[in-house]
Amino acid sequence: MENYIHNIPTKIYFGKGQISHLPEVLEPFGKKVLLTYGGGSIKKIGLYDTVMTLLNENGFTVTECDGIEPNPRIQSVEKGAKLCRENDIDVVLAVGGGSVIDCSKAICVGACYDGDLWEMVKTARPGRKALPLVDVLTLSATGSEYDGGGVISNLATNEKIGAVFCFPAVSICDPTYTFSVSRYQTAAGSFDIMSHIMEGYFSRTDDSDLSDFYAEAVLKTVIKNLPVALAEPDNYSARANLMAASTIGCSKIPEYGKLYTGWPCHALEHELSGFYDITHGTGLAILTPRWMRYVLAKDPTVTARFARFARNVWGLQGEDDAVLALQGIEALEAFIATLDLPSTLTEVGIDETHFEEMAVHADLGGRLSRSYSPLMKEDAVAILKNCL
Amino acid sequence: MENYIHNIPTKIYFGKGQISHLPEVLEPFGKKVLLTYGGGSIKKIGLYDTVMTLLNENGFTVTECDGIEPNPRIQSVEKGAKLCRENDIDVVLAVGGGSVIDCSKAICVGACYDGDLWEMVKTARPGRKALPLVDVLTLSATGSEYDGGGVISNLATNEKIGAVFCFPAVSICDPTYTFSVSRYQTAAGSFDIMSHIMEGYFSRTDDSDLSDFYAEAVLKTVIKNLPVALAEPDNYSARANLMAASTIGCSKIPEYGKLYTGWPCHALEHELSGFYDITHGTGLAILTPRWMRYVLAKDPTVTARFARFARNVWGLQGEDDAVLALQGIEALEAFIATLDLPSTLTEVGIDETHFEEMAVHADLGGRLSRSYSPLMKEDAVAILKNCL
Repeated sequence: MENYIHNIPTKIYFGKGQISHLPEVLEPFGKKVLLTYGGGSIKKIGLYDTVMTLLNENGFTVTECDGIEPNPRIQSVEKGAKLCRENDIDVVLAVGGGSVIDCSKAICVGACYDGDLWEMVKTARPGRKALPLVDVLTLSATGSEYDGGGVISNLATNEKIGAVFCFPAVSICDPTYTFSVSRYQTAAGSFDIMSHIMEGYFSRTDDSDLSDFYAEAVLKTVIKNLPVALAEPDNYSARANLMAASTIGCSKIPEYGKLYTGWPCHALEHELSGFYDITHGTGLAILTPRWMRYVLAKDPTVTARFARFARNVWGLQGEDDAVLALQGIEALEAFIATLDLPSTLTEVGIDETHFEEMAVHADLGGRLSRSYSPLMKEDAVAILKNCL
Repeated sequence: MENYIHNIPTKIYFGKGQISHLPEVLEPFGKKVLLTYGGGSIKKIGLYDTVMTLLNENGFTVTECDGIEPNPRIQSVEKGAKLCRENDIDVVLAVGGGSVIDCSKAICVGACYDGDLWEMVKTARPGRKALPLVDVLTLSATGSEYDGGGVISNLATNEKIGAVFCFPAVSICDPTYTFSVSRYQTAAGSFDIMSHIMEGYFSRTDDSDLSDFYAEAVLKTVIKNLPVALAEPDNYSARANLMAASTIGCSKIPEYGKLYTGWPCHALEHELSGFYDITHGTGLAILTPRWMRYVLAKDPTVTARFARFARNVWGLQGEDDAVLALQGIEALEAFIATLDLPSTLTEVGIDETHFEEMAVHADLGGRLSRSYSPLMKEDAVAILKNCL
């Protein structure tokens, strides 16, 4: 078992109606709020009005920064940081999903940063000065509500960079805000949660039992609750379990004590959505089973762990690890097939044009070559081709 | 699924050699340190010398408060708080197990409290002014390293009160410090971890899946690793998994989203150790299976959950929930039997003299009458008698 440091200071208000705590949560930081959000779905569900009423009735002044994109771009970071400086903002209030929260983290740091903000993203590190961040979550997916990271895209350079900016001081997680999330976004977001867990689960460390059992707990939670949420979008229990799983999914807690795994599917997916702006969870759902089949076929040292995945996550039984390992992947594929997500890169308009370039770039920091089952450039290209 | 608030600001340095971070951890709080510890086991394992060397070499001044008891007493809180005031202490450094950390939390609050400290304990609530607390953990058991609570005893009134004082700012959790923990304390401490989980697991809420799966994860971790730690006291993986389980055990995270359960075995055990000063984990190991058998026999609504416990924690299979429910308790009893702990109250010198009084007092706040399977006074007395 490896050493680790646990340091997540975020306070979470979880459940129906927790938005009522918003004024008391913001109050200690000051009265000048930058409200960040995306394309307006928070207006459709009435959350925008709820937030504005709470802020106005309690004497906050609000500057708005809307239009934050899925796969948020550096231009939105620049716009938000500029608004913070111009309006002497005390606290950023992000209302939305992972993209809005990710972008808002970069805004919080950017507002206190002198210099080029893409440079800030590329050199991001924990502990930089930042405005405080509060968020109201509306999508169960990225886990940005309970980690310090964010992913920012630069379409000019085809770069999508994941970096550590700052933790939310408080996250308000009310599952009812996800009732109106579409079938597609629910499925893609939930696969993102599963991917965060699987990326850490497939690891060389076999003695970090609490982490492995916890990872299995999160996966079983999604596997049980996602079909319910898809069938009954306003099923509170299902939405609540998905939201709780989201919060833990990217926290790294389920991989404490484990060796570096590289998160290879995330590394490759960031290339796909960096070049083609596809939905992150969709890219992961296409890539993950192909990555699994590829490494299982190539690397006999992974068989036992894949067999454990089959037994403990999918409840499969059998004596032969090699058979079980494959059955576990098949179970995941069958589960993905029920989600109606695109199943190939071709379907989302991606061909092999940039695969070589992606394979090289995805290995920055050795994320592929030092990953669980090390991948060379040709391995990465082969996996991408298997996704066509 | 019920609403909850997650708010645990404690930073954890987990693993071998993390003590090297001690000076940088203490530094922001100031140079005047109150060092609290127990009966001297930290001297036997060399940890006292390590800590003193680190503090001396880095210019800290140290005031010592030693001799903190298992089941720490209000007199130790008074002594520590007085030392803080007399020496203008900046930060309390607790080196020890749950008793030392619990007592140190009360000292941190007591140092800032005007008035009688037993009154402070009896009226404790979150958010009171407190000195900062840093701890170095030497026993996997109470989870005090990752919660805000503490249990303080007053032998003059036979009271043992659990209350919320303050969170450690930082906990240093190095499993090697537990290599020398005796077989008896390892077993009793580990049963305390299991009890924290089981107290929340047996609940009326059946839709908080992530919490239930996580609770099962912690139990499976202890069940797997405790026998290894007992057979090989210096097995790092086993000790590390027990320490990680301890940290989560009392955090309440594995019962987020679940209804109040009352923690009835803890309520009764605090009476036993309040009157007789027995080891907390031992009292729990005697009480828990008797509580289980009693409520299962009396209350048919608990059968399904006990059957789940049998299936998911002990890996038992079968169609008949009633049969499985009993087999799950038998599996727990068989596990306890391997630990060589006292198995009856008679063995630890307790007779029925105070059972009536204990049953009344344990129900303070409705902990028994509003618990998972509600217990009246006569139920509590019957359970205690079954432990003789």
